[in-house]
Amino acid sequence: MTRTFDHIDLLGFDVFGTVVDWRSGVARACEPFLRTHGINADPFDFADAWRARYQPAMEAVRSGGRPWTRLEVLNLENLLYVLARHDVDADAIPAAALAELNRCWQRLDPWPDSVPGLLRLKRRFALAPVSNGSIAGMLQLARFGGLPWDAILGAEIAHNYKPQPAVYLASCDAAGVQPAQACMVAAHNNDLAAARALGLATIFVRRPTEHGSRQSTDLDAEQDWDVMAGSLVEVADALEC
Amino acid sequence: MTRTFDHIDLLGFDVFGTVVDWRSGVARACEPFLRTHGINADPFDFADAWRARYQPAMEAVRSGGRPWTRLEVLNLENLLYVLARHDVDADAIPAAALAELNRCWQRLDPWPDSVPGLLRLKRRFALAPVSNGSIAGMLQLARFGGLPWDAILGAEIAHNYKPQPAVYLASCDAAGVQPAQACMVAAHNNDLAAARALGLATIFVRRPTEHGSRQSTDLDAEQDWDVMAGSLVEVADALEC
Repeated sequence: MTRTFDHIDLLGFDVFGTVVDWRSGVARACEPFLRTHGINADPFDFADAWRARYQPAMEAVRSGGRPWTRLEVLNLENLLYVLARHDVDADAIPAAALAELNRCWQRLDPWPDSVPGLLRLKRRFALAPVSNGSIAGMLQLARFGGLPWDAILGAEIAHNYKPQPAVYLASCDAAGVQPAQACMVAAHNNDLAAARALGLATIFVRRPTEHGSRQSTDLDAEQDWDVMAGSLVEVADALEC
Repeated sequence: MTRTFDHIDLLGFDVFGTVVDWRSGVARACEPFLRTHGINADPFDFADAWRARYQPAMEAVRSGGRPWTRLEVLNLENLLYVLARHDVDADAIPAAALAELNRCWQRLDPWPDSVPGLLRLKRRFALAPVSNGSIAGMLQLARFGGLPWDAILGAEIAHNYKPQPAVYLASCDAAGVQPAQACMVAAHNNDLAAARALGLATIFVRRPTEHGSRQSTDLDAEQDWDVMAGSLVEVADALEC
């Protein structure tokens, strides 16, 4: 460990990919939806296509081209886009069925190590999502998976999306800590790079199957992050929790 | 029970007085402070005087006369005011000592029934403070007392103070529920009256010693709230959690 954690009070967590396995959960919900509506697509491919719209949709908000818009709204728009790309007339699908499918982002399984790791880390640190998900979405994910957060921070607190500095800074401010008293925990190097540039400590968690077996990004650390681990249990080991 | 709770998803809690015993905790912190600085005042009287400035300080924000200001800032200003009324030169007291005393509002014991009651209620409902305290203050109180919140809502989400409607409405909105899907839990009739006017369900918890043995306000329900109970354990009983 290149940095002591003695002065760290808050661990801020990326959630989608770092704490929960979004791909399996979204594919699980897509499978019956695709079947019911006669859409010929592999559920995992459909989940990947849906997720591929995630960054461009947020970029409109980051760039200032669009006012603050919660992730649920972006996810639903992205679903309509992906359906259109599959030559599906979304107007023929009941709005309630689309809304129900969209809620799959609130019912994602934690990685097997997430809850045990978080429960140990909670003994020493305050824990909060610093996610691009909404407060409502994070609340539902926490209840679905038993994630023991102390508060919910992140994009909705800042009305902006990571990796914009405002998200990390507003989250620290709301939690009553300086950036130097906070640490970002993420499976994504760009998230940690943005946090480090602001003075936060950084923990990289390898999630080499977040995007499936053919994943090509974030397979390993791209900087010497303060802690690098294969699971949240390993993070708890490293921080002696 | 005059109203079914089948459609309630979120219980929003008043915290100071309803979940935690602010008076004992503040007096406990004031006692050594008053002694150290040679201030001749009873710690409970001092705590009461400090708390007496709470509503007027928030009223400046509610009325629009002052921009959004977190409760910690108001509490510190109120402390300086009360010290002045005790003929104490606050400038002669180290700022760090004043800040340390001010943090007593983050170290308040839950009432004995609070944690057992919340743990049972959490099985069925999402739980969140809808308090005038800040996110940071609520986070620290939760860690101090083991309060198992799912999220932290309330004044800082709305940038306004209860009983302004914006606080209840912004809290419901952030949690992704309609007012009719939420219930306010409080020991204060005016808090519940404001929530009921917006369509929230209401639970009154009697806290007849919040202000000490001579308490004269909120000794009992002033309307037929949906549930009236003597503790959060009794609330869990009433809601069959």
